[in-house]
Amino acid sequence: MDKPKIIAVIGGGQCTKKEARLAEEVGRELARRGAVLVCGGLGGVMEAACRGAGAEGGTTIGILPGEDSHAANPHVQIPIATGLGYARNIAVVRSGRAVIAVGGSYGTLSEIGYALQGGTPVIGLKTWSLSRNGRNDNSIIPAQSPAEAVAKALELASGKGKK
Amino acid sequence: MDKPKIIAVIGGGQCTKKEARLAEEVGRELARRGAVLVCGGLGGVMEAACRGAGAEGGTTIGILPGEDSHAANPHVQIPIATGLGYARNIAVVRSGRAVIAVGGSYGTLSEIGYALQGGTPVIGLKTWSLSRNGRNDNSIIPAQSPAEAVAKALELASGKGKK
Amino acid sequence: MDKPKIIAVIGGGQCTKKEARLAEEVGRELARRGAVLVCGGLGGVMEAACRGAGAEGGTTIGILPGEDSHAANPHVQIPIATGLGYARNIAVVRSGRAVIAVGGSYGTLSEIGYALQGGTPVIGLKTWSLSRNGRNDNSIIPAQSPAEAVAKALELASGKGKK
Amino acid sequence: MDKPKIIAVIGGGQCTKKEARLAEEVGRELARRGAVLVCGGLGGVMEAACRGAGAEGGTTIGILPGEDSHAANPHVQIPIATGLGYARNIAVVRSGRAVIAVGGSYGTLSEIGYALQGGTPVIGLKTWSLSRNGRNDNSIIPAQSPAEAVAKALELASGKGKK
Repeated sequence: MDKPKIIAVIGGGQCTKKEARLAEEVGRELARRGAVLVCGGLGGVMEAACRGAGAEGGTTIGILPGEDSHAANPHVQIPIATGLGYARNIAVVRSGRAVIAVGGSYGTLSEIGYALQGGTPVIGLKTWSLSRNGRNDNSIIPAQSPAEAVAKALELASGKGKK
Repeated sequence: MDKPKIIAVIGGGQCTKKEARLAEEVGRELARRGAVLVCGGLGGVMEAACRGAGAEGGTTIGILPGEDSHAANPHVQIPIATGLGYARNIAVVRSGRAVIAVGGSYGTLSEIGYALQGGTPVIGLKTWSLSRNGRNDNSIIPAQSPAEAVAKALELASGKGKK
Repeated sequence: MDKPKIIAVIGGGQCTKKEARLAEEVGRELARRGAVLVCGGLGGVMEAACRGAGAEGGTTIGILPGEDSHAANPHVQIPIATGLGYARNIAVVRSGRAVIAVGGSYGTLSEIGYALQGGTPVIGLKTWSLSRNGRNDNSIIPAQSPAEAVAKALELASGKGKK
Repeated sequence: MDKPKIIAVIGGGQCTKKEARLAEEVGRELARRGAVLVCGGLGGVMEAACRGAGAEGGTTIGILPGEDSHAANPHVQIPIATGLGYARNIAVVRSGRAVIAVGGSYGTLSEIGYALQGGTPVIGLKTWSLSRNGRNDNSIIPAQSPAEAVAKALELASGKGKK
């Protein structure tokens, strides 16, 4: 049996309604295509994505900063309480074969940094863009829609040799 | 829908045949009773427990020390690659509502310490026993068989208010 | 007695000669002004900054990813071996009252994310610049020289109430 | 120049007066003999040890669980705020070439487990003792006095090849 692909969804613990709609549709599409969703387990983009995945019968994992599984949003099926604080960010992105970023603030930026440092593809929906010492860095792959983001994530996840 | 109870199984990455038989039966019994198994994802006791759970159709989560999901034993269905080294030990035990220790060496001892420090019940099968400044510490609850260990773990997990 | 101010210097484990010169001068200036330097303890920008600080009699701390203190560059006086892998990045920036980034790649980006998320000021020398959903984010404070970077870091460190 | 030996002192964040006296004398003796003290930075045994070391002009490092350096006890000269919660326990013991345990509860037990798992010598003063599957485990080296504990720690630290 093939193992399911695990895809990480990252973004703010608080978010706009538009970001929530995008994240929920990302979650739905991941579930429809048989992927497992991993995220940081809290509110905002994380909750919206889990809600979408759950509505389509998908599996949702939340890697929480604190020590209490009850802090997970209600759509997390498998809460992983780490007690590691924001150091759990690295575990979120290392667990995914690709990362989809929806909006997001500085915590999301730390996750994007970790993903790119580890060679994990990052697909972005209305998120950060980067330049380094005055030159654009195009490592974050833009997507125009949740469906496109998921399609790219799954395609790039297949090519990720190390996982 | 009630969420499944998550129970952590800890023990050595290398183990005796007897420990492997105990761990496999712990995994089987957890799956039969509908619990999700979380462990450190590697070999020895962890692998035997996952093999048992998988054979009974249970769900298995492996929280790995390294950055590569492929390092998980073949019976881990959901690998969580943390990149945290042995600091992942705290995430293993914090994720369980109870902990079952089978044999184990010093890494297992660090996990027992974390579990007891956080108020998570620990049930022991042929594992460490402790005394502090000359007095026995009976915090590790002994079990005589895998079935008894699982029964106690599930009973104590119910009483764990915080999760 | 007032405690010394601890300032974090971040940047690539490999770097250009120009970045090394900038980092070394940052280290020298921090030491001249009585600050303690904390960094990730490895090569490149980290080593150059420690070399500069040591040359002026300053104190240098290296928070290492691995388990072996010997992996520290030779100018680290106090090696902290964490065994945490790149999760040690958060400890580097949380330990500083301000952060100076010199060049840097994706690991540095994760550190910048953590610093800004925690409210720690970040001063940049030829490093990342950010925009979010199409708008510039000016949170990284630019400096034109090592002396200016250190002056701004020490000024902002004073204002950081929580430390 | 030889680098100073770093020795970890571990024990409860709350402790008896007797344990505090022992820990303070451990700190004094470490400083007299030129060692740097690393600990978890909080109260109880950690504070007493730092107070002793500081009184003799020694250097004290506190590796804190939280994100705020101000949480360190007043005798910590170099606070390392990790934000890692109790996962910082592994960084405390990995940073020392030897570990001295004074009393202590379950958090201390997790640190003893980590130290022994990593091959770092542990010297005990009125602390845990261990048996595994019914057999005594004598890995914790007993000491009868703070001076003996420090002497053994420094002797064993010399022999620890990897640091």
